[in-house]
Amino acid sequence: MRATVLEGVGQVRLVDVPDPVIEQPSDALVRVSLAAVCGSDLWPFRGQESFTPGDRMGHEWIGVVEEVGAGVTRLRAGDLVLAPFAFADGTCRPCRDGLFTSCPNGGFWGGRHDGGQAEAVRVPFAESTLVPVRAEADAELLRRLLPLTDVMATGAHAVVLAGVRPGSTVVVLGDGAVGLCAVLAARRARAGRIILVGRHPDRRDLAKRMGATDVLAADDSATVALVRDETEGGAGGVAECAGTQSALDLAIDLVRPGGTIGSVGVPNGVDSVDLYRLFRHNIALRAGVTPARRYLEPLLAEVLAGQLDPSPVLSTELPLDDVAAAYQAMNARQATKIAIRP
Amino acid sequence: MRATVLEGVGQVRLVDVPDPVIEQPSDALVRVSLAAVCGSDLWPFRGQESFTPGDRMGHEWIGVVEEVGAGVTRLRAGDLVLAPFAFADGTCRPCRDGLFTSCPNGGFWGGRHDGGQAEAVRVPFAESTLVPVRAEADAELLRRLLPLTDVMATGAHAVVLAGVRPGSTVVVLGDGAVGLCAVLAARRARAGRIILVGRHPDRRDLAKRMGATDVLAADDSATVALVRDETEGGAGGVAECAGTQSALDLAIDLVRPGGTIGSVGVPNGVDSVDLYRLFRHNIALRAGVTPARRYLEPLLAEVLAGQLDPSPVLSTELPLDDVAAAYQAMNARQATKIAIRP
Repeated sequence: MRATVLEGVGQVRLVDVPDPVIEQPSDALVRVSLAAVCGSDLWPFRGQESFTPGDRMGHEWIGVVEEVGAGVTRLRAGDLVLAPFAFADGTCRPCRDGLFTSCPNGGFWGGRHDGGQAEAVRVPFAESTLVPVRAEADAELLRRLLPLTDVMATGAHAVVLAGVRPGSTVVVLGDGAVGLCAVLAARRARAGRIILVGRHPDRRDLAKRMGATDVLAADDSATVALVRDETEGGAGGVAECAGTQSALDLAIDLVRPGGTIGSVGVPNGVDSVDLYRLFRHNIALRAGVTPARRYLEPLLAEVLAGQLDPSPVLSTELPLDDVAAAYQAMNARQATKIAIRP
Repeated sequence: MRATVLEGVGQVRLVDVPDPVIEQPSDALVRVSLAAVCGSDLWPFRGQESFTPGDRMGHEWIGVVEEVGAGVTRLRAGDLVLAPFAFADGTCRPCRDGLFTSCPNGGFWGGRHDGGQAEAVRVPFAESTLVPVRAEADAELLRRLLPLTDVMATGAHAVVLAGVRPGSTVVVLGDGAVGLCAVLAARRARAGRIILVGRHPDRRDLAKRMGATDVLAADDSATVALVRDETEGGAGGVAECAGTQSALDLAIDLVRPGGTIGSVGVPNGVDSVDLYRLFRHNIALRAGVTPARRYLEPLLAEVLAGQLDPSPVLSTELPLDDVAAAYQAMNARQATKIAIRP
């Protein structure tokens, strides 16, 4: 089959690899229906995160089960399934606590495991990892479902970590796909006011359509004072959806004493946290990789009911043959997120 | 009157200063009944925190009201009062949220404000700051009340920040006065297991008498593995009561995925937080200076009811004349905490 690999900095290529096979009784083989390029795929692509040449790529994907191992009884060939960006055994203490991403037997798609930007994937711990859709899916529904596997779950996690409650005010930092999904999630959580702070003026209208009540520029020096004025000294919750040093510093500027920063961006290049400022004003820092599996069922139910549509974060769609072009476009910020169709 | 000042590194002296007078209608003048030397007093004493020569010292104290300003109606001369280590206006947004230490009009005792290691103190915002005891107090009761103003409130805050719930397991890091008070607070919060990790073998028995179910050595390389084994991969809550880099790093080693570190020690010399490890395992970091005022009434009620006695953290008592000797003894770790009687 064909699979996307990272051969060097800036060098993504579609190559022929051996077809995956069932290795363990708990495995499933899944044919990929739709995948995406994630902002975090760009870190190794840019050489800002270590990788081994030949690493498989892609951790956002959905597909159709082709074959299951002897131990898999709750899934069958033909099922359309959502794959959270991490697989997990479902039985250890972290999994029982809903911390699937801390499973000692689990892992993330890509690298030495199969990646989602490919024709098929071997899924370990298939029953505890995959969530069947149990509905007929056309191309439009696939586009609505795909973001659940990472960015929509991550937006939901950001809002949980930031402690958003009905009627509360939340600042969402970052207008990438995760930030936009956090806006959707904050609306689901019935936040009273959703202030998106981002760097891309061209995403302002989209953010408002997705539920932001205010959109402000991260690089405008007036933004901090404006948010503080409007929120009696800062927001109770800030959902930090970028994972950069400047975003974390800005989050501390925008949160009120006693408030909470929920941070879901992979901390890339973040080398300091102003612990004294957190301490001085009792600001909670809740940073965490999203245990996406925990969020899939409720998000799926809302998509199927027509109450949630994160597909606007997919700015375009390309065939798998053009995966290298998709990376180039994402890297040049010509697209928020690109869907890849095998 | 006489007051303790810091004249240089290692140089604490009792000097004559002008008697404090009422300056604002909301002030009270309070004669100090009992004060203490706090571990955090040692930071500037050792030159590990900046100070201005001549700074007043002492932020843990209780006393008797001598005179009140025209705007003070709920306190009168003769009232025995508890003074939380920060004063606050009681009306701003942070105060209304219970974040008295973030009051923009408030401050901390000592420095350019009056200090508690003195004969008397001018108290700004007296009504919102001071808590009257409304009971006859003998020397023993004064010793039980004094720790509420800082270390006992801080122990209680650590337990709140660490998210201790009935039946849960908490690791308390630090066997100084705050750590020992956190043990008491964890017992009040009905923690099922209270594991104290400290550096002083001689405090082991005291810690157990105060409620620790286990006492382990911070510098024993087996401690991390032992705690992880006993808690299925780490404690859900860690109350970090030291404020040092090594304690924070150890806290991250001892907390489970999805758990919470409550950190109440002033971060002194802490220059890095392993944000990636927090992120990787969804560990919440809740660091905060204690808004002591918030905790005084419930703690006072428990002391008066005979249900709480933090006085064992006071290892000895010296007259105000010997305050310099008290600093020397605390600095040499010959005492957990020394009470000072004017």
